[in-house]
Amino acid sequence: AIKENGKMREKTLTMDTLNPQVKAVEYAVRGPIVTKAGDIERGLQQGQKHPFTEVIKANIGDSHAMGQKPITFLRQVVALCSFPELLNSPSFPEDAKQRARRILQGCGGQSLGSYSASQGVDCIRQDVAVYIEQRDKGVPADWDNIYLTTGASDGIVSILKMLVSGQGRSRSGVMIPIPQYPLYSAAISELEAVQINYYLDEDNCWALDINELHRAYQAAKEHCHPRVICIINPGNPTGQVQSRKCIEEVLHFAYEENLFVMSDEVYQDNVYSPDLQFHSFKKVLYEMGPEYFNTVELASFHSTSKGYSGECGFRGGYMEVLNLDLEVKAQLVKLLSVRLCPPVSGQAAMDVIVNPPLPHEPSYLQFHKEKSAVLGALAEKAQMTEQTLNTVPGIKCNPVQGAMYAFPRIFIPPRAVEEAKSLGMSPDMMYCLRLLEETGICLVPGSGFGQREGTYHFRMTILPTTEKLKVLLEKLRDFHIKFLKEYASLEEPKR
Amino acid sequence: AIKENGKMREKTLTMDTLNPQVKAVEYAVRGPIVTKAGDIERGLQQGQKHPFTEVIKANIGDSHAMGQKPITFLRQVVALCSFPELLNSPSFPEDAKQRARRILQGCGGQSLGSYSASQGVDCIRQDVAVYIEQRDKGVPADWDNIYLTTGASDGIVSILKMLVSGQGRSRSGVMIPIPQYPLYSAAISELEAVQINYYLDEDNCWALDINELHRAYQAAKEHCHPRVICIINPGNPTGQVQSRKCIEEVLHFAYEENLFVMSDEVYQDNVYSPDLQFHSFKKVLYEMGPEYFNTVELASFHSTSKGYSGECGFRGGYMEVLNLDLEVKAQLVKLLSVRLCPPVSGQAAMDVIVNPPLPHEPSYLQFHKEKSAVLGALAEKAQMTEQTLNTVPGIKCNPVQGAMYAFPRIFIPPRAVEEAKSLGMSPDMMYCLRLLEETGICLVPGSGFGQREGTYHFRMTILPTTEKLKVLLEKLRDFHIKFLKEYASLEEPKR
Repeated sequence: AIKENGKMREKTLTMDTLNPQVKAVEYAVRGPIVTKAGDIERGLQQGQKHPFTEVIKANIGDSHAMGQKPITFLRQVVALCSFPELLNSPSFPEDAKQRARRILQGCGGQSLGSYSASQGVDCIRQDVAVYIEQRDKGVPADWDNIYLTTGASDGIVSILKMLVSGQGRSRSGVMIPIPQYPLYSAAISELEAVQINYYLDEDNCWALDINELHRAYQAAKEHCHPRVICIINPGNPTGQVQSRKCIEEVLHFAYEENLFVMSDEVYQDNVYSPDLQFHSFKKVLYEMGPEYFNTVELASFHSTSKGYSGECGFRGGYMEVLNLDLEVKAQLVKLLSVRLCPPVSGQAAMDVIVNPPLPHEPSYLQFHKEKSAVLGALAEKAQMTEQTLNTVPGIKCNPVQGAMYAFPRIFIPPRAVEEAKSLGMSPDMMYCLRLLEETGICLVPGSGFGQREGTYHFRMTILPTTEKLKVLLEKLRDFHIKFLKEYASLEEPKR
Repeated sequence: AIKENGKMREKTLTMDTLNPQVKAVEYAVRGPIVTKAGDIERGLQQGQKHPFTEVIKANIGDSHAMGQKPITFLRQVVALCSFPELLNSPSFPEDAKQRARRILQGCGGQSLGSYSASQGVDCIRQDVAVYIEQRDKGVPADWDNIYLTTGASDGIVSILKMLVSGQGRSRSGVMIPIPQYPLYSAAISELEAVQINYYLDEDNCWALDINELHRAYQAAKEHCHPRVICIINPGNPTGQVQSRKCIEEVLHFAYEENLFVMSDEVYQDNVYSPDLQFHSFKKVLYEMGPEYFNTVELASFHSTSKGYSGECGFRGGYMEVLNLDLEVKAQLVKLLSVRLCPPVSGQAAMDVIVNPPLPHEPSYLQFHKEKSAVLGALAEKAQMTEQTLNTVPGIKCNPVQGAMYAFPRIFIPPRAVEEAKSLGMSPDMMYCLRLLEETGICLVPGSGFGQREGTYHFRMTILPTTEKLKVLLEKLRDFHIKFLKEYASLEEPKR
């Protein structure tokens, strides 16, 4: 194949010419371990031999994939919206039909197949605002500040995109917790912003320490312009639930330093410790008084993917954005309009989550039962995970107060650390690869989320069924003990 | 509200600090005219008086919003997937159930609520590959090259993102047709790439002229590195259907100049002229021989939003990417994985479009009838639009060979041009605003898509019902004649 100029055709897009920001992106939740797990799974199906018969995926917060059943009411409403002839069927309850009729009324041509407005369907945004007011005990919510999104990720990236500008020392800095959910670091790489790490306090149940925020901020000011602070509450991957006092400190700090606050609250329904509760950043901001509530720019994010519904595949979500400059708001809407709209069936799913059956409605009992069953099982598994992990020498796990993950610290013997380094691999990556190959358990190494230098962790979800989670934890314990023995040295495992 | 340092809190995010690339983005399809149309619509509902009783939106290719009914089979499959209890219902046909069972089998936990793989559900990607092979009369398609996307837009932006790099004279240049669909210019702005315009030939039914491609390429080489050529076929906003010969010329050009080819083929089912047919870029590339088929990097895009189904709200789509470097492919999958997956209900909708009922299946007759009715009505409206517009003095419209739009040239008298300029507005924007205010018709000015200097156009969809489209065209004619009279000068309208 010779071109007219006598040369061979070369590829246009190679690793050398690829956008370097794309190259810089990392996303461990679906990284090499997960690819390998998929390969092994296919191998098992084709009859390959492994020391196990099934791969257990505890790498990603994907509830239905781990066997959780959908909430009936939600699916009824989505099915009714998808095929409105079902509105005539006696086998669907009246409250589901009423929700579906209302959603369709808000859609162009009363069809889920029309584009919605770029901010989402009006009546769903109104329902979101009502939900937020109830959740926050009367703090006012304006549906003009609500944007429906394609999962929470889409909203988070859109807001970050607005905030990134400048070059050199005036480049935007984004403060994120370490450990973090790697969407944040990936978006920061892609947008060429500066990542500012503030470390959560592992010795204090992964609490956010305000002094550490100050330290990180002051250090970063030397080389960039810190403009935004991201908080994940309840924490991913760390599972902590932030105290009201701590939230107030963060908001005060953001007020003082003119920071935009991004509050990732997708696990707001996932709080398991009976002595803890979820406080929204918005409610605390309101309680701090109008000089805060009317000035601090705050975006908070929610999603259909987590909570008790676990509807990841619908890619539903919303964000509420407070105190956004009016001209900037128009720019945000313009930016969103290029992608036209979030998936409308995801918007419908979001509507059910913010507008569930009420006690007097026909679906209430079943809905309540299904919701409690999911949250009850998660609470039980959270406790079981923490307790079992803490029986293993060389593993130390904070309480899983909320969210869907444990992020235990693991002791990796110096000889294993050496070996990993000689393989050009982070030690916890080697650990997780070995675990996968020997037991079929798929976890994500702590290095994919960030951790203090010299410490090692993994993230595991608490989503497998109780039975399967027990098996997973036993296999993990046996593997860890064997691993410690194999690399044993004179040093005692640190607890 | 005074901070500890004695200063007022300032907003972090203002027009001054906003990401300049976000500011640079423009997207006319949902621009100021559409916002104004929404305001007027709300005003009408609240009893405000206007010289019309309804707003007719012909600004966006949103079929269902204009009254088109969903394809029954597609919605049955989506409803079955959403609420699998319906699989036991005798009121759903067996072929719809078979599709739904197969899709659910491909989903984690057999639920639409699980994340899919980042490239999409395997069996749906396989169905897409089979569809492409049939469409292209046996040209092989590998499902490993198929990526399901969130509408076509998502895929287009992902591929462009990969291709953008360099600074100054080595910055990536992206060749796009003028007029273009403004997703392209918006993405190029956001990614800080260089937009290279090649002009379609209005005097020749908006055909792509290979000499114009060469001209644009050579001129651009002086100040950037042209790396990709985008083609929209059938054309948006211009409605032309590209000839096989022209496609071959473009591919030869891309081969010679090492360009990546992006072929936007979302209107592949929307060809109305009986003497024209859709040729995929891939099929033509194959027919050019292995030295082309095995080297030219080609991404082609399809969507659930257009065609005969018009399912915009589901945000379904796919792309097929040929000859991608293997390492680069891994990078693409990594990039997509950050957003986890496209909406799974949109993937299900895409599956139905590539895997519709076969002649021996129970839903075939109804499906075929519904599909033919939609495409027949569009063909009729395409012709009616062209013919009626060409009866108006000062309007000249090329045949609407395909897609869903007419993009007529309008004569705007010099005095009107002057007036628009004094208002700081493009003349066709002033024209469309006046049209909206006086008649309730919402169109998009040609300046939002690009046009040759000194020419003026608008884009209108052919989607309103035949009745409503007749009304629209009459009102438009009357408005145009009145407009010409109002700004009459000695000069004759150009035809």
